[in-house]
Amino acid sequence: MGNKEITIGLFGFGCVGQGLYDVLNHSEGLKANIQKICVKDKNKKRKIDASFFTYDKKEILTQGHHNVIVELIDNANEAFDIVKEAMNNGVSVVSANKKMLAENFEELYQLQTKNNVALIYEGSAGGSIPIIRNLEEYYDNELLSSVKGILNGTCNYILSRMELENKDYTAILKDAQLNGFAESDPWLDVAGFDTKFKILLLTIHAFGIVLKPDDVFNTGIQNVSYDDILYAKQRGLRIKMLGLSQKVGDKYRVYAIPHFVTRESELYNVLYEYNAVEVEGAFSCKQTLVGKGAGSHPTGSAVLSDISALTYDYKYGYKKLKKALGNNTKIEDGIKQVEFDFSIKLYIRFQDKEQLKDLQILNVEEEYKSASTNYIIANVNFNSLFNIYNKRDNKLFVCAI
Amino acid sequence: MGNKEITIGLFGFGCVGQGLYDVLNHSEGLKANIQKICVKDKNKKRKIDASFFTYDKKEILTQGHHNVIVELIDNANEAFDIVKEAMNNGVSVVSANKKMLAENFEELYQLQTKNNVALIYEGSAGGSIPIIRNLEEYYDNELLSSVKGILNGTCNYILSRMELENKDYTAILKDAQLNGFAESDPWLDVAGFDTKFKILLLTIHAFGIVLKPDDVFNTGIQNVSYDDILYAKQRGLRIKMLGLSQKVGDKYRVYAIPHFVTRESELYNVLYEYNAVEVEGAFSCKQTLVGKGAGSHPTGSAVLSDISALTYDYKYGYKKLKKALGNNTKIEDGIKQVEFDFSIKLYIRFQDKEQLKDLQILNVEEEYKSASTNYIIANVNFNSLFNIYNKRDNKLFVCAI
Repeated sequence: MGNKEITIGLFGFGCVGQGLYDVLNHSEGLKANIQKICVKDKNKKRKIDASFFTYDKKEILTQGHHNVIVELIDNANEAFDIVKEAMNNGVSVVSANKKMLAENFEELYQLQTKNNVALIYEGSAGGSIPIIRNLEEYYDNELLSSVKGILNGTCNYILSRMELENKDYTAILKDAQLNGFAESDPWLDVAGFDTKFKILLLTIHAFGIVLKPDDVFNTGIQNVSYDDILYAKQRGLRIKMLGLSQKVGDKYRVYAIPHFVTRESELYNVLYEYNAVEVEGAFSCKQTLVGKGAGSHPTGSAVLSDISALTYDYKYGYKKLKKALGNNTKIEDGIKQVEFDFSIKLYIRFQDKEQLKDLQILNVEEEYKSASTNYIIANVNFNSLFNIYNKRDNKLFVCAI
Repeated sequence: MGNKEITIGLFGFGCVGQGLYDVLNHSEGLKANIQKICVKDKNKKRKIDASFFTYDKKEILTQGHHNVIVELIDNANEAFDIVKEAMNNGVSVVSANKKMLAENFEELYQLQTKNNVALIYEGSAGGSIPIIRNLEEYYDNELLSSVKGILNGTCNYILSRMELENKDYTAILKDAQLNGFAESDPWLDVAGFDTKFKILLLTIHAFGIVLKPDDVFNTGIQNVSYDDILYAKQRGLRIKMLGLSQKVGDKYRVYAIPHFVTRESELYNVLYEYNAVEVEGAFSCKQTLVGKGAGSHPTGSAVLSDISALTYDYKYGYKKLKKALGNNTKIEDGIKQVEFDFSIKLYIRFQDKEQLKDLQILNVEEEYKSASTNYIIANVNFNSLFNIYNKRDNKLFVCAI
């Protein structure tokens, strides 16, 4: 146990914030407590005493009563401002905001160096799974070849329920929204952005490569239908939304796309809000870590482990990144190391052939038509997938084979 | 990356030792090298230059050219002498010898404190899976309720091949011995001792409880037959040799016994030499870590990660143990915290009812007799299992349900 006593200024008291509060209250021996919580909504009824709350972020950021800031708000831009200000004030930060981290990584990395403070974020990827710290500390000398995983609880929850309850996407999504497993605007989750932000963070810690989110392709389950689930089921497969970062020769392939996985895969039985990460190394071979990827207490416990790490002044060493940097201080855009011009085998469901025109299809291996559904199995030039990237009106469901 | 340069004196150049040598040679950026290797057999042909080797342990232990001793020999007693001497000389030690560690834990713990040196042993449990360090660092403030897993590669390899090739135990064991997946005397592996040593080490890091190996029950797959595999197969189950440490009320249950696992279990698809560990916590819920549990390179990579940790002066904090100790320096025997008087539901295959007389059977739920096989499904008083403990002439196959 570290000797440092942690006094927390907390931003946000939603699902994860409340989870952290509970977990912290039940944690024995950890010298950490929440002193103040900054929230937005003055009218919302809170579960704990009003004296904990402030509505003015300055009260936490500038008055210096806290030696750690824990940032657990939704809005990535506001989160970035808070985190920047805290770090510039010399205060270490724990965050779980993958969007904010992935979009602003270079600046956040420089702020850590400049101010000699820690920014740690285990809760930002894989929920309760200790993946970032393991990549950083345990696999630090391992020649890694691939990191991939089920990283979005919402997608996995929807796909699991569709299959196990034989229901269509819209019905399950609606129910998921009612039960708190999907946001009212689920786009970032279901279209694979959230998965992408997370695989980008893992790519930094696994390979030392920093990429801009917009340079990396993602598509998700926004257009999945029960026909697709049935297609998988009949072949003993399951659809899993995966983020993937893979070394192929001297280059890397990084993307977020649904995949069919076989019954023999460690990922097959990972259901509902569970997440999983597979790490492959030259010597350790394949390792799989499975755990709850969402929810108040699981993510709260990941945040708690970060707070605990700060009691003994833990910081990410960014070992792979520093090795890649060498004597440079400025992080180079990793895009040069990424491969885009390769063939990827996809299952593509469409209504109308016209919808396929944006894709560079190299060859079609199978084609299926019926009154209700059409699909092809085809090899597609990966680069051409960017033609359907982030288009809400695109209706293709794409799944890697 | 730490700044300390590691000069290794290595004991043993068998499977794991050679694996470490390879992994170290391919590891970039780690400031560590093997200076001398102490082996026993002067006549054995070695893959690397003769100048590396010595046959006199004093050459490594007393001449002080090494700042880390890596102990990877088979014999637990000799290993203990080496490790003790190294630590008393103020040198940190990396070991993968679970038998030595489990049998001598208290003394080894005191030696760490007395000499202010590190003794770390990630390779001793779960092969390449980073379980000990995760229990120590990541779950340090988590209210854990259970740690269990497939911890012995030999058992899992034999069980997997029996099922997938429809063969009997003796045939597969013989083949496993030829292929280096089982020792010439496989007793410690197949009878569950190895699994027990490992779960005892995990129990120290998960719960802070130190137990003597002889106080903890184990039985293994030494009497498994194809009938048992078939019984499982027909019910969609698989037999897995598990080590288990579980909190039930205020007490702990710790043992190593084969278990039936269902198709839905994360452990079901863990095959051959793969290991898996499931950690359950109040807040993080269930986490599963899967990876290769045996073999030259996977275990070598776990040892390498320990060596890498020593470059930044890592030591186990023994956080749970220290909390349990309070102001005491002497470790109390954990046996008082362990429950023995409870009912456990077992599948028991036997030839002759006489063989069951040593067990206190509380009630029989099912009974099956045929010309070739007899079994019962029964609730048994756990304590009475010690009547068959470590008896090579006991012919029961026992599997928890």
